[in-house]
Amino acid sequence: MTELAVDQDVTEAVHAVADLARAASRRMAHANRAWKDQGLLAIAAALRERQDAVLAANARDVARGRESGTTEAMLDRLTLTPDRVAALSEALKNLASLPDPVGNVVRGQTLPNGLRMRQVNVPLGVVAAIYEARPNVTVDIAGLALKSGNAVILRGGSAAADTNEALVGILRDALEAAGLPANAVQSVDRYGRAGANVLMRARGRVDVLIPRGGRDLIQSVLNNASVPVIETGEGNVHIFIDESAPAEMAVNIVLNAKTQRPSVCNTVETLLVHRDATALPDVLSALSAAGVRLHVDERIMAELPAGLSAVPACEADWGREYMDLDLAVAMVDSLDAAVRHIRCWSTGHTEAIVTNDLSNAERFIAEVDSAAVIVNASTRFTDGAQMGLGAEVGISTQKLHARGPMGLSELTTTKWIVRGEGQIRT
Amino acid sequence: MTELAVDQDVTEAVHAVADLARAASRRMAHANRAWKDQGLLAIAAALRERQDAVLAANARDVARGRESGTTEAMLDRLTLTPDRVAALSEALKNLASLPDPVGNVVRGQTLPNGLRMRQVNVPLGVVAAIYEARPNVTVDIAGLALKSGNAVILRGGSAAADTNEALVGILRDALEAAGLPANAVQSVDRYGRAGANVLMRARGRVDVLIPRGGRDLIQSVLNNASVPVIETGEGNVHIFIDESAPAEMAVNIVLNAKTQRPSVCNTVETLLVHRDATALPDVLSALSAAGVRLHVDERIMAELPAGLSAVPACEADWGREYMDLDLAVAMVDSLDAAVRHIRCWSTGHTEAIVTNDLSNAERFIAEVDSAAVIVNASTRFTDGAQMGLGAEVGISTQKLHARGPMGLSELTTTKWIVRGEGQIRT
Repeated sequence: MTELAVDQDVTEAVHAVADLARAASRRMAHANRAWKDQGLLAIAAALRERQDAVLAANARDVARGRESGTTEAMLDRLTLTPDRVAALSEALKNLASLPDPVGNVVRGQTLPNGLRMRQVNVPLGVVAAIYEARPNVTVDIAGLALKSGNAVILRGGSAAADTNEALVGILRDALEAAGLPANAVQSVDRYGRAGANVLMRARGRVDVLIPRGGRDLIQSVLNNASVPVIETGEGNVHIFIDESAPAEMAVNIVLNAKTQRPSVCNTVETLLVHRDATALPDVLSALSAAGVRLHVDERIMAELPAGLSAVPACEADWGREYMDLDLAVAMVDSLDAAVRHIRCWSTGHTEAIVTNDLSNAERFIAEVDSAAVIVNASTRFTDGAQMGLGAEVGISTQKLHARGPMGLSELTTTKWIVRGEGQIRT
Repeated sequence: MTELAVDQDVTEAVHAVADLARAASRRMAHANRAWKDQGLLAIAAALRERQDAVLAANARDVARGRESGTTEAMLDRLTLTPDRVAALSEALKNLASLPDPVGNVVRGQTLPNGLRMRQVNVPLGVVAAIYEARPNVTVDIAGLALKSGNAVILRGGSAAADTNEALVGILRDALEAAGLPANAVQSVDRYGRAGANVLMRARGRVDVLIPRGGRDLIQSVLNNASVPVIETGEGNVHIFIDESAPAEMAVNIVLNAKTQRPSVCNTVETLLVHRDATALPDVLSALSAAGVRLHVDERIMAELPAGLSAVPACEADWGREYMDLDLAVAMVDSLDAAVRHIRCWSTGHTEAIVTNDLSNAERFIAEVDSAAVIVNASTRFTDGAQMGLGAEVGISTQKLHARGPMGLSELTTTKWIVRGEGQIRT
């Protein structure tokens, strides 16, 4: 546990922000779908209208980043362009077209004594988000929180401070113009790291905290937060090719899972191959031809097809999320050995098996404990849009509240509503 | 944040317990309902057969407690009798009769590309419980965890150490006899407070921690835990009597909510009465006649019916969970004022309105943010058995994962199972 030194003034200021968010969340909870959608469309329009201001603020952030030696990859994530602003605006319009999760009846019944009970979805209340210098997350998370009837408190990376300030200003103005509370979107960026620390420990004031970013950010939040956290994202994803796997299917699935978009969390990072799998040489050749760097154990090295190159895998490779055109490959003696390897190294995101053996498929499903377990399809399908959830808040790798792709309904909680005419317990 | 000093040996020992629990949880996850129910019935039978040993161990705990000056109320909660052991045994039989939450399909669909997806309930894995010197909780929590396919790690109050050791021994023997893993039930009582601290911070080893007990225990767990926690129990419950409330209904509901079982969390603790409510004198007289001590604000004091006595309420009374025949009573000028009072003081458990005004009923439902909101019925209905959930794990007052009465399904998480025949993303 890190001891957090926090200034008393910052504590009071962040708590004041949270209290304004609480008041705004009550108004958001009562806004019906039409009203909330009007707010989202107003934001979408304002983003395009005030695009020049956003791009100017963003140019200042990028210039500052470049001066301070920020990597090109990080600068790219920080940079907004007219196309990227247009995409943010379109995403808000899509959000407006989705059903409202609030008011959905989860279950209900009339009891023998005549009491009518139903459990309905209601907004969580105050959602906080801590994320890196990616201005798109500012608009994205705010949109999701508003659609589900919540207020949101944002803390973005300081490298994107100017952009975020411009975006939050636009969001608040548009909300107000639509008759919704501006304080439903607030930022604590001006309080820096100390503000983030207060936010993480504002138990009772913040209903849920969503960290969005890399492993370090998420670990830091998990270690320091006392408010409820939803953990998202880390994916050390495995595919197991068993001895019955058809070579062509194995090649297609592994290639797609590794090369279609290597930088995302549902891309495969380790391939496990049964010692008798006839698909092995075709799979290795196809990966190599696609430019994938193979990190292989000794047994795979010994069976490497002629002309292919690979580097020896070390222990650390089994735990690596490369998020690039790199793949660890190991040979296993059995399904049991594959499951043992996965249990040891998986982050619980997604694992797949390629097989034509029914009993192996069922055993893999039963014994692998991940958010998604896939038989004979690409791991790239673990995705809110692909799975038909509409917008995606993230991919939860935790077990409480939400597991796997999270849609809008995961930003709600429930309330039991009980109606009677004087019933008492006897 | 309290800094926890923990011995390295205790850390290793508790982690070893958790690792055995993890292995046992895998076997439990694969046990079908018939098998798990057989285990529960075996425990139920063993408790009766080995009752003498349990009662002898309990007598030692009680004698030690009495020597060290434990209060009679706490001794009562510590004490087991043949009747109480029989009740524990019956509760396990009831648990065996309930449906298995594991394998239940939450949702599912076939996507346009032919992928079949379904989201099913699976056990959480390793459930930990930290509770006070109440031996019944040992059997209760273990039964719930086992029925839902989990392994459980128990940490009971040290004042019940001998009883818990006897009970855990019986549970483990009975599981083994039924062909289920004995390590699905383990205790860390022998590692004392240090063991509890390690358990609270065994992130990745413990899937959920359930504190069962009073406010201090729950706060201590919330402040120190890094594993996911489900908070249960605190209930500062309100009833609001509006100006339209029929006097007879108001009397019946308030009397039932306060006197039917004052020591539980769904009993009413504060009564708010509209200044024009004609029901007021009848309600106060009935409460007084039932022996309820009234803690009233100045305006109620001024309208106290002749012959009734009451004590002036101080600020602290609005935040008190008396859990006894005490009730705080305040007069309010409007529904808005009642909602403001509730927002300020409620623990988010249960609030009720007594009214004949439809618009007041709907506004109360919409504006009060608690796990259960009740119109014209006793607050005592916020209860798993009353609400038809079968067994109850507790009443969650948090918003994530579970809110309100938690049944067996709240001890599960979900897994997406995706089946295809070679589908890839394009």
